[in-house]
Amino acid sequence: MSGGLLSIEQAQARLMAQADASRIEDSESVALAEADGRVLAEAVCAAVDLPPWPNSAMDGFAFRHADLSRQPLPVSQKIFAGMHPGPLQPGSCARIFTGAPLPPGADTVEMQENAELLEDGRVRFAEPLPVIGRHVRPQAGEARRGEEVLARGTRLGPTELGLAASLGAGRLRVVRRLRVALLSTGDEIVELDQPLGPGQIYNSNRYLLHAWLRRLGCDVVDLGILPDDPAQIRTRLDGVAGADLILSTGGVSVGEADFLGQILREQGELIFWKLAIKPGKPLTCGQYRGIAVIGLPGNPASTLVTFALLARPYLLRRLGVERLEPLGFEVPASFDRLTASSRREYLQARVNEGRVVLHSNQSSGVLRGATWADGLVEVPEHRSFRAGEPLRFIPYAQLLA
Amino acid sequence: MSGGLLSIEQAQARLMAQADASRIEDSESVALAEADGRVLAEAVCAAVDLPPWPNSAMDGFAFRHADLSRQPLPVSQKIFAGMHPGPLQPGSCARIFTGAPLPPGADTVEMQENAELLEDGRVRFAEPLPVIGRHVRPQAGEARRGEEVLARGTRLGPTELGLAASLGAGRLRVVRRLRVALLSTGDEIVELDQPLGPGQIYNSNRYLLHAWLRRLGCDVVDLGILPDDPAQIRTRLDGVAGADLILSTGGVSVGEADFLGQILREQGELIFWKLAIKPGKPLTCGQYRGIAVIGLPGNPASTLVTFALLARPYLLRRLGVERLEPLGFEVPASFDRLTASSRREYLQARVNEGRVVLHSNQSSGVLRGATWADGLVEVPEHRSFRAGEPLRFIPYAQLLA
Repeated sequence: MSGGLLSIEQAQARLMAQADASRIEDSESVALAEADGRVLAEAVCAAVDLPPWPNSAMDGFAFRHADLSRQPLPVSQKIFAGMHPGPLQPGSCARIFTGAPLPPGADTVEMQENAELLEDGRVRFAEPLPVIGRHVRPQAGEARRGEEVLARGTRLGPTELGLAASLGAGRLRVVRRLRVALLSTGDEIVELDQPLGPGQIYNSNRYLLHAWLRRLGCDVVDLGILPDDPAQIRTRLDGVAGADLILSTGGVSVGEADFLGQILREQGELIFWKLAIKPGKPLTCGQYRGIAVIGLPGNPASTLVTFALLARPYLLRRLGVERLEPLGFEVPASFDRLTASSRREYLQARVNEGRVVLHSNQSSGVLRGATWADGLVEVPEHRSFRAGEPLRFIPYAQLLA
Repeated sequence: MSGGLLSIEQAQARLMAQADASRIEDSESVALAEADGRVLAEAVCAAVDLPPWPNSAMDGFAFRHADLSRQPLPVSQKIFAGMHPGPLQPGSCARIFTGAPLPPGADTVEMQENAELLEDGRVRFAEPLPVIGRHVRPQAGEARRGEEVLARGTRLGPTELGLAASLGAGRLRVVRRLRVALLSTGDEIVELDQPLGPGQIYNSNRYLLHAWLRRLGCDVVDLGILPDDPAQIRTRLDGVAGADLILSTGGVSVGEADFLGQILREQGELIFWKLAIKPGKPLTCGQYRGIAVIGLPGNPASTLVTFALLARPYLLRRLGVERLEPLGFEVPASFDRLTASSRREYLQARVNEGRVVLHSNQSSGVLRGATWADGLVEVPEHRSFRAGEPLRFIPYAQLLA
């Protein structure tokens, strides 16, 4: 056990170092349609120029800019998208549609709204005349053949898949899924299909984390609820061969019923961190027979905050993701904080009319505030402030995916 | 065809009215572990008080506050989470752990860090003494039995699933998935497994939208690429019976090759909107033989922006979701805009050191900027401004899910 209170940054740095040392090296090839949420195991480079040829950004007319002095210009060809036009006849223009290739010899497009079709079939362009290159998308303007367009470690989403498709990449090499063994401890926890006995509660963390882990692209092995019984815990843990991480909630505290903590201390390595944050003080980190272990506090709001700030970036880094800092925004507080806290607080919040407002119940035992909130607001430690001062607001949308 | 330029708000209002008139009424019951991303078809009410009994928020000692005057107090019982304690012996305290039920008669908890265990086994609490009710989580403090905790129309995510689990709700009634027939039009578009011929490009929108629609919980029927051939388009459209929406990209413009638009005009209803936004000017909306149709512009950045701002809220509203406005944040611009635009612009942007910075290539034909960007920044129409003025930044994380 290491004593003292760790800042969130210290804890993140230590976890990231552990993640860097155990990055998943295996990869697999997946079809583009199945690659959403996966992480690139190797960079995607452009196999073609994008676009492959200069093309029109507008419905209109293509011509050589120098020929504008000779207008009105006759229309010598009509080019739809998908066609392969021949060279532009000198002194003429081509009717052209959006996305269609420019005919060799043309260098400028004017949109049809600025063109007048004369009775003799020629076209006159309205003033002001376009500058050279107007409405032309140059060949390779988006990417040049061979250029890296998506880096290794990129988390794939709809836009990345769209870009890969535009380069003809039908399959991508991605890091294999992380296998997470999820377990909950506590004699008080019962399965959803059972009635609540005296002193019992249902298990919320398991469902919170199961859905979240799947959003992060993990394969989840649900080990269920472990009773406060050392022999049963040991048996269950021995069954998780092949996992990359054992993620537990509850049971790891300074309390006398901390059997999971005892077993981890005996069979592996257990580091116990007290974090200088609220909610979410205790966090454990270690290994059991070579498998990494992260133990989150059991109070649901603490589970949520520690997973969001620590376990989530750890998991993504093991997959090779480099950009991990969730995007936060400075939003003025709607409330005073007259007594500074010794711990940094993460509170369930919404932004209303440009101000951060708080949920009325910030208890670490309560998850309801998180279903109301649009994000977490970071209240700095050791600082009092008045309404109007900016605080960092982190949207849940950034954290929950 | 209705002429004139529509504002994004006008277009949204019209689409929302159409969505409200065609909300999906069918529902199904799904297990909690499979409910992520679905929309509640009926409210979730608490089947039990949450928590079911008053419990301790700390590892420490529980007692009757009035007995503090008689301290040191003997320890009369030890209560772990999951136990069902008998009444507290008057004038004593109980050793108690986080989450364990308070014994009847106790009303206050002091954490163990503020307690001293004397040699005679009694406990003395340090000054300042706790106020009554300290560290006690009252019964029903989070939810009272029968109370609505998640409204109909709630989109379910990890926190909602966790809350439902804490109430013992093992299955939830959700709106059935929306069935979307996705099609791309254009003679220039080829499948990923084919080499590019002259004038051809790969289809990026299909993969962009396929992944995005799945994130929105839709069942996607991919109709593939439609050639610019009226007979083939008609045949393909006639095969989409059972879809709730036909979503197309490209092909609907004022260009002469707009066969899809022609067919929709003949066989159903076609409304053609010119939007006062950039990118993403043209949008069609109508129906084909009773199936709703939305036609997005074919340029990838236009597809992205119009899907994010119009199709996405439309789809979610048809599922019954009420809160649709993506959370935007006021962030100072890092650039000047000296010439006001007549259309509102949505630009690919990041937030760097508290300022909005733009991607260098904002062409509507380019998707690469979106893979670089963290969100869209809204540049108001008819307004010039200088760096430092706040603009609305919408994180992609809000839009892409």
